[in-house]
Amino acid sequence: MNDTMLCAVLHGVRDVRLEQRPVPTPQPHEALVRITRVGVCGSDIHYFTHGRIGDNVVRAPMILGHESAGVVVALGSDVSGLSIGDRVTIEPGYTCRQCRYCKSGHYNLCPQVTFMATPPIDGAFCEYVAWPADFCFHLPEPLSDEAGAMMEPLAVGLWAAQRGAVQPGDTVAVFGAGPIGLLTLQACRVAGATTLIAVDIEDSRLQHALRLGATHIINDRDRRAVERIREIVGGADSTLPPVYRGVDIAFETAGALPTTRNTLAVTRPGGVAVLVGLPPDPLVELDIVAAAHKEIDIRGQFRYANRYPRALALVETGRIDVDSLVTHHFPLAQAAEALAFADEHKDLTLKVMIDVGD
Amino acid sequence: MNDTMLCAVLHGVRDVRLEQRPVPTPQPHEALVRITRVGVCGSDIHYFTHGRIGDNVVRAPMILGHESAGVVVALGSDVSGLSIGDRVTIEPGYTCRQCRYCKSGHYNLCPQVTFMATPPIDGAFCEYVAWPADFCFHLPEPLSDEAGAMMEPLAVGLWAAQRGAVQPGDTVAVFGAGPIGLLTLQACRVAGATTLIAVDIEDSRLQHALRLGATHIINDRDRRAVERIREIVGGADSTLPPVYRGVDIAFETAGALPTTRNTLAVTRPGGVAVLVGLPPDPLVELDIVAAAHKEIDIRGQFRYANRYPRALALVETGRIDVDSLVTHHFPLAQAAEALAFADEHKDLTLKVMIDVGD
Amino acid sequence: MNDTMLCAVLHGVRDVRLEQRPVPTPQPHEALVRITRVGVCGSDIHYFTHGRIGDNVVRAPMILGHESAGVVVALGSDVSGLSIGDRVTIEPGYTCRQCRYCKSGHYNLCPQVTFMATPPIDGAFCEYVAWPADFCFHLPEPLSDEAGAMMEPLAVGLWAAQRGAVQPGDTVAVFGAGPIGLLTLQACRVAGATTLIAVDIEDSRLQHALRLGATHIINDRDRRAVERIREIVGGADSTLPPVYRGVDIAFETAGALPTTRNTLAVTRPGGVAVLVGLPPDPLVELDIVAAAHKEIDIRGQFRYANRYPRALALVETGRIDVDSLVTHHFPLAQAAEALAFADEHKDLTLKVMIDVGD
Amino acid sequence: MNDTMLCAVLHGVRDVRLEQRPVPTPQPHEALVRITRVGVCGSDIHYFTHGRIGDNVVRAPMILGHESAGVVVALGSDVSGLSIGDRVTIEPGYTCRQCRYCKSGHYNLCPQVTFMATPPIDGAFCEYVAWPADFCFHLPEPLSDEAGAMMEPLAVGLWAAQRGAVQPGDTVAVFGAGPIGLLTLQACRVAGATTLIAVDIEDSRLQHALRLGATHIINDRDRRAVERIREIVGGADSTLPPVYRGVDIAFETAGALPTTRNTLAVTRPGGVAVLVGLPPDPLVELDIVAAAHKEIDIRGQFRYANRYPRALALVETGRIDVDSLVTHHFPLAQAAEALAFADEHKDLTLKVMIDVGD
Repeated sequence: MNDTMLCAVLHGVRDVRLEQRPVPTPQPHEALVRITRVGVCGSDIHYFTHGRIGDNVVRAPMILGHESAGVVVALGSDVSGLSIGDRVTIEPGYTCRQCRYCKSGHYNLCPQVTFMATPPIDGAFCEYVAWPADFCFHLPEPLSDEAGAMMEPLAVGLWAAQRGAVQPGDTVAVFGAGPIGLLTLQACRVAGATTLIAVDIEDSRLQHALRLGATHIINDRDRRAVERIREIVGGADSTLPPVYRGVDIAFETAGALPTTRNTLAVTRPGGVAVLVGLPPDPLVELDIVAAAHKEIDIRGQFRYANRYPRALALVETGRIDVDSLVTHHFPLAQAAEALAFADEHKDLTLKVMIDVGD
Repeated sequence: MNDTMLCAVLHGVRDVRLEQRPVPTPQPHEALVRITRVGVCGSDIHYFTHGRIGDNVVRAPMILGHESAGVVVALGSDVSGLSIGDRVTIEPGYTCRQCRYCKSGHYNLCPQVTFMATPPIDGAFCEYVAWPADFCFHLPEPLSDEAGAMMEPLAVGLWAAQRGAVQPGDTVAVFGAGPIGLLTLQACRVAGATTLIAVDIEDSRLQHALRLGATHIINDRDRRAVERIREIVGGADSTLPPVYRGVDIAFETAGALPTTRNTLAVTRPGGVAVLVGLPPDPLVELDIVAAAHKEIDIRGQFRYANRYPRALALVETGRIDVDSLVTHHFPLAQAAEALAFADEHKDLTLKVMIDVGD
Repeated sequence: MNDTMLCAVLHGVRDVRLEQRPVPTPQPHEALVRITRVGVCGSDIHYFTHGRIGDNVVRAPMILGHESAGVVVALGSDVSGLSIGDRVTIEPGYTCRQCRYCKSGHYNLCPQVTFMATPPIDGAFCEYVAWPADFCFHLPEPLSDEAGAMMEPLAVGLWAAQRGAVQPGDTVAVFGAGPIGLLTLQACRVAGATTLIAVDIEDSRLQHALRLGATHIINDRDRRAVERIREIVGGADSTLPPVYRGVDIAFETAGALPTTRNTLAVTRPGGVAVLVGLPPDPLVELDIVAAAHKEIDIRGQFRYANRYPRALALVETGRIDVDSLVTHHFPLAQAAEALAFADEHKDLTLKVMIDVGD
Repeated sequence: MNDTMLCAVLHGVRDVRLEQRPVPTPQPHEALVRITRVGVCGSDIHYFTHGRIGDNVVRAPMILGHESAGVVVALGSDVSGLSIGDRVTIEPGYTCRQCRYCKSGHYNLCPQVTFMATPPIDGAFCEYVAWPADFCFHLPEPLSDEAGAMMEPLAVGLWAAQRGAVQPGDTVAVFGAGPIGLLTLQACRVAGATTLIAVDIEDSRLQHALRLGATHIINDRDRRAVERIREIVGGADSTLPPVYRGVDIAFETAGALPTTRNTLAVTRPGGVAVLVGLPPDPLVELDIVAAAHKEIDIRGQFRYANRYPRALALVETGRIDVDSLVTHHFPLAQAAEALAFADEHKDLTLKVMIDVGD
């Protein structure tokens, strides 16, 4: 093992440079992981193209990437339960372990979270990461390292379904069929939803949704998604008022204003709308009166908690497919190209993967 | 008992007429109740002044009033559990008992609900009402008929606290200190909230809130409610980011845009915002991004379900005070005056009560 | 349609007689259903062989059978949403619709329930049943009448999984691989459980469990089920104390003392044990101290509520298999033989089906 | 500050010796607390009189006591949020912060917990304790150190009410009116229970229960508690079957077989029975069939999680009284006498308090 490692460092908007940095030394409770795969997330692309996401501003050079997997190459003195040579996936946010959020199971809300590739914390577009061992999870034999890197977006999808409290026999609609949408869809399916409606404006993504378990797909180019969902759920001859011809749970994963509105519109009275994606502008004109009058819950989402072991079990047993979402590969040395490609080809990419160290 | 009864009938905007109508005959499962007290609700005032609430339009003459109590004077053949002479409070909405909502405990969402004083259903500004006996609840001895009429708004407050899932030791903020706000505040207190912040712009209402258990009151005339709640919850020397200096649960009962915004703003990450009141305009500019990013739940409310027995127990045991909320009385023959007075004197009235048949 | 119908009537222990009785007339809210299929349940067998189940004693001749499907042949005047000719499955218990249980979504606990084949209510081993239309559910096209009859035990299995609050990625153990056990197992699978351990003492049933999604099977003839579950869950090299090597949720469906004990023993701290079956004797020696000390929930089950629409959706979409559980058929005229056969051949039967009127 | 401190050390059954031990040095994340008050718990008495509780055996000399409060006298280098001179109450169990239980909010079930006065961990019958700072909680001004020591049993009572999911308007019965029973009773009251039935065999304790909010008391010397609870809940003229005349939630805090049976017996169908205390013998004859048939939840309890901040808020606001439970005082030098006295005078003591260092 060398003393230094290759890193792809974001210095400014669209300015990613390859640099050598010292290989980190694991603290007593940490594992040192040689990274093998890192996915490119929408947030990476946003930092690459804008240098910020809302109040999170990249003020100093920062390594992107937080969807990673690799191999344990060294262990701190206090680590048990991991061995050198273990393949692992890394949960990219560790927390203070002491605050009310950490102690009550909501550690994703910890105000002291250390999260990869959120300024000023470095991410995993590099060869080695030292990370608390209890946030590194064994990859079971059948899972590739690439699948390991996919555990992060899958955790988002599983948390969405958890926030929605999906039950067997439920009807759901998922707005957006990008990686998060497709993983949310699968998370709903595995939780027992029997009517699964995927909505997007790209036919290729909708076809992918069909293959992954969607029972209905809607291309919303004609802006008739609400109407068509009502037909699907209510039946042609339903005598119920329109508002009752909605789904039990609706998910917004596209991060757009019209889909956010539609998510609220298609949720049946007493149902749940989960906002996984977020519209770009802070103030949104929403028919909050109609939503509240239906007594629905509008549930926000911030990352996830305690999902990695479940994500691994679900993929290991073949209940959820992550492999088919990986559409493109780039070596670490071409991280900038990977980010640019993902940004420019949203229509034909799902997950762009960075291969490290092959 | 006469064959006809006095009714106060809404014929149009600000047009309430006294009329004689036939006393209804109870169906087999119904009780006939001689009404003694009926409260004036904000919705009654709104129908009186606008002739509609949203899509609910008064198209034919309709009797207002849905917060009622009285005495059982006749029983249908299938009724058990009630006797003639029983004093009762009437839950004003009965439902189909067959749909998914009725069968799963969410009967307040039944699409076939029959709700007093919601067009075209007549309410209780009259001398007699025939109503399903299982929606008529015995008034325990210590409760006055007037208190009985207050069970309806109390049910709203209890449902709000239930929607908010208030737990012992929670911090809450209630925006609006009208009848619903004051009853929501008490419902939170009785569920164990220890920090109870009431916000309004009328000092007299805030003083009432203090007497009913508020630990802090804020007059928001200066529009600094969010800031002041952060000081109360976080302490002067808190090192937490502002967003974390919020309450566990916030309630909007004022039905206004600024209070709706504030309700979302002061809810801590992972907390719950309950929308009890509703802003007058359907489209509201809300910082839904910030709210969702905190992973809060925004929960709407539509009336209530299964609250009357609990409301009665809480008032009977002295845990909740409803008597002090009744500020004015009018006889049934002056129902129009009562509505006008309540409309014109929102600052000095809390609950205006109609006394029937004394 | 004749005025009379063939019925198989239980007159005493092992005394089932074929009789002609008047075809019932549907009340205004009822449908008249021509029965086509009725399953034989363990409770039917128990009434047949013992004349009672606990305090429920057959004191007058009674028709058995409560797992039924058929075709609507007449409708009461108030029925909407069903048409003559519709194939339906019948939920065999209807309730008072007025008590606290009915109004709060727990109608299975209604003290006034009318449940088929629980004394003194007649069941469905006959040609026609008149039943409240809202407890008759359309059979979607792909489902056979036989599958329709299976909705009842499936509702039990779904309620078990609901009581257990099974989540994606959970580990579960199901004691007993009879019809209820196999349907509970599938209900857990469809709710996302990824480790599904079936325990029985009949290899043929365990093989069936494997085909239906069990990931592990244990023949407990050697009484080592607890030990083997600990191996499966904890791994061979686990350093966790034995009590922690348990499943998230364990289900008792066999109705025996040793399996009840094992169910509590294999539930991990903080987990849930669901008692679906019930041991024959009222007083059971259980290590309640150890169970309580683990802070587990021991949840009883009494029938189910609101499961039929979900059961139908799950079978219609191919997520749950009921067809393979039907192992034997008898015509209605041989109801007594069917009961005797099912009683004597518990090892080789799963569900014995009565075919009516073919 | 001296280098050594006085400790009361348990060497064997009824063998407590006063010894000098070194004052501990706080680790970086710890506070050093000068103890001022420690309560005597039933578990301390049991270790004193039996040398063990179940599998927990005192094999080496151990300091008893886990209900403690004191003053911060030194801080480790990493501690923030506490200052020297702060009065604090100590939560006596800290955990690994890394396992599934710690991360999901159930840290009370952590297999690596370090809990005071559970072998081999030393407790607080001594002058100084070094403890993780995040398990030390500021005592608000109005609370005495003695009240601070009472936060521990109050946390047990609050967790019991939380496990029972007590809601405003609920009916509850609490078996046992010792310190845990009286605190559970108050926790139920503060959560909104309106019918609160205390059952014990000591009249003095029942009188105390009345003062603390019980609405009904039952001296069960005549073994008629179940019958009398049915009268209270059902009313004299109830037509409901006996099983339905139960409470919503019943609590066992006495740790005896008959009270455990009664707890299950008086829980209404669909209700919750919480086992706070535990019978001395592992195998208990319980009518589990009747309990399961009612579809009740039997919920165990193991200590508590996340209760201290809530306990402090409830006592600070006067919602719960802990002061009146302290009936006797002994200095630390008489720890042995305190334990013997508490053991011999269970009838007249509630909480015996050790005063340290006055």
